[in-house]
Amino acid sequence: MVLRDTDIGTTTADRGTSSSKTISSDEVNGTAVYNTQGENVGHIDHLMIDKVTGRVAYAVMHFGGFLGMGEESHPIPWEKLEYDTTKHGYLTNITPEQLQGAPRRSDGWRDDDRYRDDVFRYYNTAPYWL
Amino acid sequence: MVLRDTDIGTTTADRGTSSSKTISSDEVNGTAVYNTQGENVGHIDHLMIDKVTGRVAYAVMHFGGFLGMGEESHPIPWEKLEYDTTKHGYLTNITPEQLQGAPRRSDGWRDDDRYRDDVFRYYNTAPYWL
Repeated sequence: MVLRDTDIGTTTADRGTSSSKTISSDEVNGTAVYNTQGENVGHIDHLMIDKVTGRVAYAVMHFGGFLGMGEESHPIPWEKLEYDTTKHGYLTNITPEQLQGAPRRSDGWRDDDRYRDDVFRYYNTAPYWL
Repeated sequence: MVLRDTDIGTTTADRGTSSSKTISSDEVNGTAVYNTQGENVGHIDHLMIDKVTGRVAYAVMHFGGFLGMGEESHPIPWEKLEYDTTKHGYLTNITPEQLQGAPRRSDGWRDDDRYRDDVFRYYNTAPYWL
């Protein structure tokens, strides 16, 4: 996660496409996600927030079923998403190949802690809670 | 914010009252808030999340208009909320006296950065972004 110069000091009162640094928990759902080629690959379905620390643990992302990304929802470590202030959305370097075999949003997906552990292990992301 | 022993290792699949460590961005709204006497003083209306860092910047809290807390919504630094795993809600030490003159959710409240600065200054809370 890199804080960009363009993301500092500008505020607007609009929603969603705002250049403000913050986004509401009731508006983040639906935020677009792009791949490293700048192509829209899906959107944020919702975020899972650590109740105690107030840190986003992971995002549940819906992939649109194009560019080789199957139309499914997957939990994604927050570290795999970088906010782009010009696109007003998130960039991810997750590849179609990585998604094959990746943890999916399934019947048991609300079993959060287990999912969190699996997700961070799958993407080889350092667990923020240790 | 203190991580309690009872908050580790237990997961359930239910919503809201779950003992899981995480809560969805589409479920956090409405979570109860209690004062230091354990009395319900209101609820979380929504959280404002830093788009880049994934950290909760502040909560917009609705006070219920009892116990001297006027029925209004106020932005509250995250540091003023502590999650209680037995109550499945947040505790705050904010007093009715403190709420008088506190920043309110007003017409311009989406002007996030200015509000954030005002809110942290009012509650004398260290700015997490510096």
